[in-house]
Amino acid sequence: MAKKASKSNVLPYAAGNRGGAGEKPPGSGVPRQDDTGVMALNLPPAQLSPAMEAYFKKCEEKLGFVPNVLLAYAFDNAKLEAFAAFYNDLMLAPSGLSKLEREMIAVVVSSQNRCYYCLTAHGAAVRVYSGDPALGELMAMNYRAARLTKKQRAMLDFAVKVTNASSQIEEEDREALRRAGFTDRDIWDIAAVAGFFNMSNRIASATDMRPNAVYHGQGR
Amino acid sequence: MAKKASKSNVLPYAAGNRGGAGEKPPGSGVPRQDDTGVMALNLPPAQLSPAMEAYFKKCEEKLGFVPNVLLAYAFDNAKLEAFAAFYNDLMLAPSGLSKLEREMIAVVVSSQNRCYYCLTAHGAAVRVYSGDPALGELMAMNYRAARLTKKQRAMLDFAVKVTNASSQIEEEDREALRRAGFTDRDIWDIAAVAGFFNMSNRIASATDMRPNAVYHGQGR
Amino acid sequence: MAKKASKSNVLPYAAGNRGGAGEKPPGSGVPRQDDTGVMALNLPPAQLSPAMEAYFKKCEEKLGFVPNVLLAYAFDNAKLEAFAAFYNDLMLAPSGLSKLEREMIAVVVSSQNRCYYCLTAHGAAVRVYSGDPALGELMAMNYRAARLTKKQRAMLDFAVKVTNASSQIEEEDREALRRAGFTDRDIWDIAAVAGFFNMSNRIASATDMRPNAVYHGQGR
Amino acid sequence: MAKKASKSNVLPYAAGNRGGAGEKPPGSGVPRQDDTGVMALNLPPAQLSPAMEAYFKKCEEKLGFVPNVLLAYAFDNAKLEAFAAFYNDLMLAPSGLSKLEREMIAVVVSSQNRCYYCLTAHGAAVRVYSGDPALGELMAMNYRAARLTKKQRAMLDFAVKVTNASSQIEEEDREALRRAGFTDRDIWDIAAVAGFFNMSNRIASATDMRPNAVYHGQGR
Amino acid sequence: MAKKASKSNVLPYAAGNRGGAGEKPPGSGVPRQDDTGVMALNLPPAQLSPAMEAYFKKCEEKLGFVPNVLLAYAFDNAKLEAFAAFYNDLMLAPSGLSKLEREMIAVVVSSQNRCYYCLTAHGAAVRVYSGDPALGELMAMNYRAARLTKKQRAMLDFAVKVTNASSQIEEEDREALRRAGFTDRDIWDIAAVAGFFNMSNRIASATDMRPNAVYHGQGR
Amino acid sequence: MAKKASKSNVLPYAAGNRGGAGEKPPGSGVPRQDDTGVMALNLPPAQLSPAMEAYFKKCEEKLGFVPNVLLAYAFDNAKLEAFAAFYNDLMLAPSGLSKLEREMIAVVVSSQNRCYYCLTAHGAAVRVYSGDPALGELMAMNYRAARLTKKQRAMLDFAVKVTNASSQIEEEDREALRRAGFTDRDIWDIAAVAGFFNMSNRIASATDMRPNAVYHGQGR
Repeated sequence: MAKKASKSNVLPYAAGNRGGAGEKPPGSGVPRQDDTGVMALNLPPAQLSPAMEAYFKKCEEKLGFVPNVLLAYAFDNAKLEAFAAFYNDLMLAPSGLSKLEREMIAVVVSSQNRCYYCLTAHGAAVRVYSGDPALGELMAMNYRAARLTKKQRAMLDFAVKVTNASSQIEEEDREALRRAGFTDRDIWDIAAVAGFFNMSNRIASATDMRPNAVYHGQGR
Repeated sequence: MAKKASKSNVLPYAAGNRGGAGEKPPGSGVPRQDDTGVMALNLPPAQLSPAMEAYFKKCEEKLGFVPNVLLAYAFDNAKLEAFAAFYNDLMLAPSGLSKLEREMIAVVVSSQNRCYYCLTAHGAAVRVYSGDPALGELMAMNYRAARLTKKQRAMLDFAVKVTNASSQIEEEDREALRRAGFTDRDIWDIAAVAGFFNMSNRIASATDMRPNAVYHGQGR
Repeated sequence: MAKKASKSNVLPYAAGNRGGAGEKPPGSGVPRQDDTGVMALNLPPAQLSPAMEAYFKKCEEKLGFVPNVLLAYAFDNAKLEAFAAFYNDLMLAPSGLSKLEREMIAVVVSSQNRCYYCLTAHGAAVRVYSGDPALGELMAMNYRAARLTKKQRAMLDFAVKVTNASSQIEEEDREALRRAGFTDRDIWDIAAVAGFFNMSNRIASATDMRPNAVYHGQGR
Repeated sequence: MAKKASKSNVLPYAAGNRGGAGEKPPGSGVPRQDDTGVMALNLPPAQLSPAMEAYFKKCEEKLGFVPNVLLAYAFDNAKLEAFAAFYNDLMLAPSGLSKLEREMIAVVVSSQNRCYYCLTAHGAAVRVYSGDPALGELMAMNYRAARLTKKQRAMLDFAVKVTNASSQIEEEDREALRRAGFTDRDIWDIAAVAGFFNMSNRIASATDMRPNAVYHGQGR
Repeated sequence: MAKKASKSNVLPYAAGNRGGAGEKPPGSGVPRQDDTGVMALNLPPAQLSPAMEAYFKKCEEKLGFVPNVLLAYAFDNAKLEAFAAFYNDLMLAPSGLSKLEREMIAVVVSSQNRCYYCLTAHGAAVRVYSGDPALGELMAMNYRAARLTKKQRAMLDFAVKVTNASSQIEEEDREALRRAGFTDRDIWDIAAVAGFFNMSNRIASATDMRPNAVYHGQGR
Repeated sequence: MAKKASKSNVLPYAAGNRGGAGEKPPGSGVPRQDDTGVMALNLPPAQLSPAMEAYFKKCEEKLGFVPNVLLAYAFDNAKLEAFAAFYNDLMLAPSGLSKLEREMIAVVVSSQNRCYYCLTAHGAAVRVYSGDPALGELMAMNYRAARLTKKQRAMLDFAVKVTNASSQIEEEDREALRRAGFTDRDIWDIAAVAGFFNMSNRIASATDMRPNAVYHGQGR
């Protein structure tokens, strides 16, 4: 194992410390990235329904926090309910895709769209579900560099084409998924998850939604 | 010198048949575009809940047909309910944006993504809501060529940036909307509608969803 | 749970007014799209030659109007004559491509370039020549979603590559057309029509050329 | 002045010849680029009209050769006549743009489209008209690196936007040209020349048109 | 503080566990991402010079490992020496840019190019130099979402333009840096670091270079 | 052979001189492109080491001039030495790629990035090494139009993918090179040369580096 990194030995491939006298210290003047707000829109929270109150409570108990995306939607209880129902059906209901696979799609799509919120929250989910921090990094950085089964790779290639060139999808793209072992129902689910994060990424970026800071350390 | 215009071939864009002897008739061999199926995935319809049965019945009564997007989701009653609730809140609930403005965003986003289903269905909505067929065409073809108020143009510019470059949206983009007269709640709604059609366009294209043929003639 | 569909807001895409009290009427404040001018450049018409006067007269008689593109060129009789001769040879002279096929190329290219003038004028031509309104819409919205013969699809794929990536065309692209049944002369014609609308689209957009309003309703 | 380049001293910034024994000689195995054909389509020449015969004869007399683009069109006399008339009006008729300026637009557009034929033929024209070989290279390589008047730069920026993003041109783009000193007629001419080479580039690339070899050395 | 994440509570915003019986466990079947090799090219290590042997030894002592990029170059001692000298001058020699700032440029450029190796190795450096894990994530995911000084933002905007549109850089881009407080020497350094990672990213991706696994956990 | 070009006969395919009285002469008002400076940054030259002084002297003797890129680096002797060592190893050391092939990669990459400095300097090198001016033009204008061996074409296709889409390179791209006859060492060299010019192009464009004027005429 490598030693614990400290400021004195992180230089990626230094032959020695060549910094002369008077050199600025490495980190001088870069503001700390404290994600304290929820988003850039000023929308006061609405009165939540009992169902939504219970939902937030359950988040606190099971996760230790309410994800900021839910706080963002809390300015309107009807929108919050509709979003939560839609999201939970998509990502948690039974499917031919495992929850990890759905999270992998979420992160790969969010990487194409460079969405800070979703890469952070769902990157954490991939790390925790898989128990493999490198897998989360690969999905966020460049899924093409990951070691995947052919079936998983076909799934992610389709999700990326859905993201970047949906108008060019044709029957041969769906056929490629069928040949890889996916059913028509699975194809719907891949399209639906990829589609959803193309929505979520855009709403998060348009409103500058900030991820809960706790995600950064999860599953490392 | 230019060729002198002669009787048999001078008229551009004419509807009449001016083909000479031996010329192939204009439309020979192009298949008729009958949109009879709902989508390219073979997903048998599920048993619908009474609420969804009533919903489909109401569509038949008021529209004369059930929109194919609803038939596409009907393979799973829970997904259909979640989609309908999410959609109806987004497009029909009270908002600082009129229903026409939300439909204009829908069409402009769908034009960026070249989604046949959504351009057809929501292009019809713009024509009918506005009573102006040319407005529907302009939203579908090139919204930059339309005569719009500065506020509407700012709204559509933001929706297009949300569509094509969401990771580059920053506070100055939101400020531009505020200066144009939009509230933070309006900004959410613009982002949410634009985001939604970035999802819908992709699911429709990924599954080759076909619009009900009746849309083509609405509002002409 | 999804929201139960309620009476007042369940119908997507409906033409009826279902806005609640206080809601802005759907179309409030969107300017009417009256295409009255010809283009954004102020160029007084020149004295036309007798041949061009006769040509405009014939347009009036057979079409009921002079296409605005011709009025746009009318500031200079020599340019008008050269354009008309070049255009009429291209689109109306005998060719292995039917007039409808040439119009399909025109619309597909214009869709790539999002040219309002050409999509409107030539979309009408596709609808009228084919007698199939949906075919016109598909060419304008996303030709990849159309049901076409393999030969027609190869023709349009080549036209789109000519439009978007002409520097990447190589012998294998021409070979694909030959395998689909096109002669070398046909290949010239496909390239020439695709090339022409890449010119026309740009001149129309650069000058904000407006289509005659009558096109919108033709062939619906 | 620099010495004449020879194989032994062209190494751009070599500290010495480090090539070891057995090193492949620099140019081994690269085929010579002889542009002997006219294009990749096999279209036998048609019987030319007396006007076109005279035109070709004049080219031979004044240029020493017939440009290959004319030979390419010679499979159909009507097309050749229409092309020659359209081209000569565009590039040689009186205009607020000098012939050099029109050629500069031609080369800058052809650079965006990476058209070998047009870059070669019109790059030569820029070199000869201007007497400045570097100007031709800059137009072909990166016009943004050239020293130009503000007016010329505005002209080329417009031509490039016409080439790459014509659907985004709006009144403010035309206003920028007017502020730079162009009349509405000049704006038409800029758009028309830029549009034309967007056609020509595509036809040349689609047919693999080859420039007459003599162009390479002109104006060096 | 949030509780430690475990598989039972990471669901980002779940209302409950809706997975039914027979649901696939989340992570089934995704291969573990073990980065054991150095790169995809099979190049046996060369005999290293004493200087390079000492350099590798120092890496082992100070970092606990030899960065894989150095092992990749070790097939040729001359290339290794040239690379190490070039790299160490660039990133460690005195400069108006702090080492952290140079690493920030490295990560932002690598994010544009989606280079797994460089995002991993230099993302770690940003985390460690700054002591702020979120800063590293923001540089890798979307630097536009980071809280930065205007000067740092100008630096990164220039580095991104150097990466994505270098041919469009003009004097006004350099002027913007000068106005932000950078000297001409600083501008060289920004360009040089941005340029270098545009090289490194491409060599790493072209050879499938794999980051040492230890980087993933550094500075979290 | 064609006659020597003069202003009176260069019109590419003119049917005659149609310029009327009062027409602006072709080249009026276009500034001469004198590349007198080295770059846009004002960095005074440093004291050079004896090795670098000797290097510059050798350039003067063998080339007749010191390439401007070396003068650009001369503000810092350490950077100049590191650059020269790195460059000379890359382009001149023994390799499975000939020097001409390395220069072809340099020009093709520089064409993708539209770098005036590198296209000029390395375009000259291709012309001189190959003795074929057209080859230099083709590499700079559109390498896909060149007549190349399959192996050379595979090499350049890889270099272009390294340039434009490095994150999408996968094992099948390397396999294609191996099938074309390249060793793993050759693949490194292609990647390294392509990578290097992606750096150099960006530094040159970011600093507006100007090529020595003498390059323009070399090898014509």
